[in-house]
Amino acid sequence: MLVPVSLGSRSYEIAVGSTCLHDVGSLLAGFKPVSSAIVLTDENVHRFGYAERVAASVAEAGINVHVLSVAAGEQSKTIETANTLWESLLEDAVDRKAVLLTVGGGVIGDLGGFVAATYARGIRFFQVPTTLLAQVDSSVGGKVGIDLTAGKNMVGAFHQPLGVLVDTETLQTLPEEQYLSGLGEVVKYGVSLDAGLFQFIEDNIEPIKRRDNIVLQKIVAECCRIKAQIVAEDEFETTGRRILLNYGHTFGHAFEVLSNYAILHGLAVSMGAICAARLALRLGLVDDAFLERQIALHCALDLPTEYPGVLERERAIELMRRDKKSEFGRLRFVLPTDLGRCRVVEGIEPHDVFS
Amino acid sequence: MLVPVSLGSRSYEIAVGSTCLHDVGSLLAGFKPVSSAIVLTDENVHRFGYAERVAASVAEAGINVHVLSVAAGEQSKTIETANTLWESLLEDAVDRKAVLLTVGGGVIGDLGGFVAATYARGIRFFQVPTTLLAQVDSSVGGKVGIDLTAGKNMVGAFHQPLGVLVDTETLQTLPEEQYLSGLGEVVKYGVSLDAGLFQFIEDNIEPIKRRDNIVLQKIVAECCRIKAQIVAEDEFETTGRRILLNYGHTFGHAFEVLSNYAILHGLAVSMGAICAARLALRLGLVDDAFLERQIALHCALDLPTEYPGVLERERAIELMRRDKKSEFGRLRFVLPTDLGRCRVVEGIEPHDVFS
Repeated sequence: MLVPVSLGSRSYEIAVGSTCLHDVGSLLAGFKPVSSAIVLTDENVHRFGYAERVAASVAEAGINVHVLSVAAGEQSKTIETANTLWESLLEDAVDRKAVLLTVGGGVIGDLGGFVAATYARGIRFFQVPTTLLAQVDSSVGGKVGIDLTAGKNMVGAFHQPLGVLVDTETLQTLPEEQYLSGLGEVVKYGVSLDAGLFQFIEDNIEPIKRRDNIVLQKIVAECCRIKAQIVAEDEFETTGRRILLNYGHTFGHAFEVLSNYAILHGLAVSMGAICAARLALRLGLVDDAFLERQIALHCALDLPTEYPGVLERERAIELMRRDKKSEFGRLRFVLPTDLGRCRVVEGIEPHDVFS
Repeated sequence: MLVPVSLGSRSYEIAVGSTCLHDVGSLLAGFKPVSSAIVLTDENVHRFGYAERVAASVAEAGINVHVLSVAAGEQSKTIETANTLWESLLEDAVDRKAVLLTVGGGVIGDLGGFVAATYARGIRFFQVPTTLLAQVDSSVGGKVGIDLTAGKNMVGAFHQPLGVLVDTETLQTLPEEQYLSGLGEVVKYGVSLDAGLFQFIEDNIEPIKRRDNIVLQKIVAECCRIKAQIVAEDEFETTGRRILLNYGHTFGHAFEVLSNYAILHGLAVSMGAICAARLALRLGLVDDAFLERQIALHCALDLPTEYPGVLERERAIELMRRDKKSEFGRLRFVLPTDLGRCRVVEGIEPHDVFS
């Protein structure tokens, strides 16, 4: 399946398939001239041989390629790792006609994309996301970046890839918690932006749980299509349209910070989505049936519905005020108004945030 | 004088005047909404009170403003300083509606522009260049960046400012060597891109040497106009057009590296421009009279015409091969074909580079 992404700065395609990593080389060969290719991966992904398969297909296409691997996990999404990679590219005399390929999850895509966006003022990059979260979310939209000690994703850029290739077969090796984290974002798309997708998820609980490749391809392609459409309307997050992708995220980000990032992003979003739905219910935007149907789907998929442990409400609210997307310290939420529909609600009083 | 800059990503104006730093506030107020302003300067510039004057005018316009100062010189154009600035912005809860103002030379403009390009995936910035080099060159065109240990400007972005304000009065406090460095780029524009400017410089040697404000305004505006026109045709350095701004630069960059950056950029370009003119003469692109007229102008302005000390030719050639703008290791030069005209010449053999 091909999902077109049409943006002001660039148009490209997301290819969604199964057992298709060997297609990367021929796709890349279509973007001549390519002086060389660098495959960036992490040590966890490296074990499964995905980066090697991508590199082999690139080499077969006649392009000089080498693999760089960094430690797995968020601790690699730092200025120090970016610096090591920049220095490494320069040492290897990587020029502006080179392409960086990212093979891994969101950290690798964000880090590699940022390095590509800034090395020699920008080289091209190609994404091969291997986690569900990266496939349905972080690999679409051009947001790349690294963390500061005091704030995630606080340094970055908008840098659109040459293309994206999703191989759902890579999800077979994904740890259960990370798979669920991806499903958290999948359900978000359904609840807040596409009732048809929500219905499809409800109708396919078992295939989703056993990671059926056909169902996953359909889901990934749908999520990419939904996100690409919104990103096309607001590539640089200036019109306010893109914020609609953030259902559950204002709460979710606060939960991630409160747990010191022990809670994975998509799981925090799951918890945040239920908090947002409860807030919408209290504001009269949705009814009880809406909330119950959403909670039922979360439960069927083993997605969390509330923050585990004791929630420090005041700290959570303070974190939400300082969210990167907030303006002038005002609280702002994306709340559902119906299945597959949502809108931005501002001016919520702090004491109304939690029931 | 207003020089319009019309680019694909943004259009803005370069305001060129004298004793006009107090105009920044009202200019900035025209870009609502502005949540706050940060003035970035260096300790050398700070001594002359330019950053304070800019900050005072911004405060008068009703915008919350504070000044950040870094050590003067290229040693601040590093990832470490950028990191300190990002952390500082985050600590001060600087949001996406803030504007960063750079008050200083090329280092401050490049560093501040890069921090602005990447903080929170990009905030707006406004340039107030206070050196001649920055006024005629680095503040135009949107190139921002920092150095790696092994290579200058190897990390960066294209990030166009909201606007630029040039106050030629700030040139009165500029050390002579830095003033000459700026003149090196000024003469470059004349020789390679605008015969009228070359003639104007020849006709105004004395006013230029005594830093006459009226003549300097005319020169700065002309250089900005020439550069803006070429940048408009090649904003992201992809069409090859922008390389025409690099007359003298392939040699010049090598000279900077060979001297371990003891030679200022514009002075290295001056030396490089004469080397390039000599190469053009050997290739039959220009005649003796062209070279002599150019050398005469350099001498009249006290600009250097050759590399001081012993030139390691083989190392110089190796450096030119690895220039960021080279492709696939081929030697490439911008050479004059007539006064105010130049073109790219490729395929020069290493033994032909120097006479």
